Amino acid sequence: MGRLLSRYRSAPALLGPGDDAAMIAAPDGRFVISVDTLVEDQDFRVEWPSGVRTSGYDVGWKSAAQNLSDINAMGAIATAAVISLSLPRDTPLEWVEGVALGFSAALEQLGAGRCSIAGGDVGRSGEISITAAVTGHLSGAEPRVRSGARPHHVIAVCGHLGAAGAGLALLDQPASSGVSERPWSSDEQRCVDLQLRPEPPLREGPVAVVRRASSMMDISDGLLRDAGRIARASGVVMAIDSSALTFDLDVLRDAGERLEINPLNWTLTGGEGHALLATYASLEDVPSGWHAIGEVRAGQPQVLVDNHEPSALGFDHFSGV
Amino acid sequence: MGRLLSRYRSAPALLGPGDDAAMIAAPDGRFVISVDTLVEDQDFRVEWPSGVRTSGYDVGWKSAAQNLSDINAMGAIATAAVISLSLPRDTPLEWVEGVALGFSAALEQLGAGRCSIAGGDVGRSGEISITAAVTGHLSGAEPRVRSGARPHHVIAVCGHLGAAGAGLALLDQPASSGVSERPWSSDEQRCVDLQLRPEPPLREGPVAVVRRASSMMDISDGLLRDAGRIARASGVVMAIDSSALTFDLDVLRDAGERLEINPLNWTLTGGEGHALLATYASLEDVPSGWHAIGEVRAGQPQVLVDNHEPSALGFDHFSGV
Repeated sequence: MGRLLSRYRSAPALLGPGDDAAMIAAPDGRFVISVDTLVEDQDFRVEWPSGVRTSGYDVGWKSAAQNLSDINAMGAIATAAVISLSLPRDTPLEWVEGVALGFSAALEQLGAGRCSIAGGDVGRSGEISITAAVTGHLSGAEPRVRSGARPHHVIAVCGHLGAAGAGLALLDQPASSGVSERPWSSDEQRCVDLQLRPEPPLREGPVAVVRRASSMMDISDGLLRDAGRIARASGVVMAIDSSALTFDLDVLRDAGERLEINPLNWTLTGGEGHALLATYASLEDVPSGWHAIGEVRAGQPQVLVDNHEPSALGFDHFSGV
Repeated sequence: MGRLLSRYRSAPALLGPGDDAAMIAAPDGRFVISVDTLVEDQDFRVEWPSGVRTSGYDVGWKSAAQNLSDINAMGAIATAAVISLSLPRDTPLEWVEGVALGFSAALEQLGAGRCSIAGGDVGRSGEISITAAVTGHLSGAEPRVRSGARPHHVIAVCGHLGAAGAGLALLDQPASSGVSERPWSSDEQRCVDLQLRPEPPLREGPVAVVRRASSMMDISDGLLRDAGRIARASGVVMAIDSSALTFDLDVLRDAGERLEINPLNWTLTGGEGHALLATYASLEDVPSGWHAIGEVRAGQPQVLVDNHEPSALGFDHFSGV
């Protein structure tokens, strides 16, 4: 394990790996913590039907992105990650080293350079599995939660919407099917990349705190499903305007044409993109780089798209994603 | 997940489950953190060769015990646990609920009643796997590490030594072999119980801090192997006196006779008992309830038993455990 940990590059902890636990600073006397797991054949495939292989680097990156996104969604800055890797006996060493490199690269490139890799654990298993727990600090601010959305607040998102879902659909397309004969366009490749290595906007969680976001979460299960969680936690209607969802449609167009799917399906229901979904008291509070996509209304908790229940619009086509 | 989390009983967090992360207090502005995983067929068997079945309760308890022990070994008091459970589709719901009950019971009965279950994650997998990350606080004290042992310090242990290893040997004995015909004695059953549900001395880590332990760790891979880690981290000889290791031999006797093994093998090399191993400046510093088992000497890092390298004594019989 010592050798593998040495492959991780990260900010130093107060006490790093090498003892039974590491020690991390929590300057304001509190910290946030979350945990997430990626399992082979559930959250990724070592080899996809399309023939693409998931590298250790991809899995390390995705684990970091997914976990850091949860910390970001609270409005916090990541301080530490501990990683447990379970691997079949025949996993190549370079694949395992790739996990460390990918995790470290995500920390640096996504803007979490102050997060320490504080420890880890490698064990044997029948299938590849990686669990990371990540902590963060809020510099004295209150955490953003799901229950603070109020009528007349503006709904806004920041990050990629739909591309990771389109990427999943492309990866799942069997290489032998006629649909995959043409090579992927650069937009399609970008969608695939965002499925394999998501890019949550990690600098934006703390920005949302400064702008007093009234509720926030990350979109890991799709916009409609996650907006439903804010609706229920806050006791409000989340009314989304589909004409405001065009900002990320361009990159989905080629995949939509190839697979004969309305790209808006991915925008509304595609998961794993880890965009931020938040509500703000007014349009003026929405930070630059964010997109206002609707408004909070009083009423029985539900999500509306263009004033209709999404199911009436056929947008649940991808609800199994 | 909400329903499963409701089965856990624990102290409240500053902000509990239900958002993307929970928030935990770190009153002195620092926290310790560690992570550990239990995987089916690696760390436990759903059904052992002896016919014993591991319950969800056992797995939950063992995960809590193993992880809390790491926090204890730093001298800290556990503040929070986040748990990720990966389960095959056919896992019975009562087995999963048992995990929550066992985890919660271990917190309470082992003396970690101030630890919050701060969140979790349940996903699908091909085999059962549970990862917990646990945090702790030190009330301003310095963490105990492995590198502080100095010549003339006293080596001491607290907790069960060898019973979990003997229990493993009993569980691994095929029901059909002649050796298992007699039912287990109460001592043998106790060994099996300590393998399935270890009992780390969770109140003793903080006591060791008060008594200024110069180094500390928990014994998860066996006394010899873990003492070797302190020897290397501190650059010292760990000289153990086998005549001081008799305090826990009684409970091993029946298993030793049945399996025709010198019980001292389990005491020296049995893992998963999660006793504490520490060094103290003098015999007077060793807290009551602890056992002095040897002394630290200057020299090339190694472990000696009765002034010999353990391999020369045949004690590595169980080194694969």
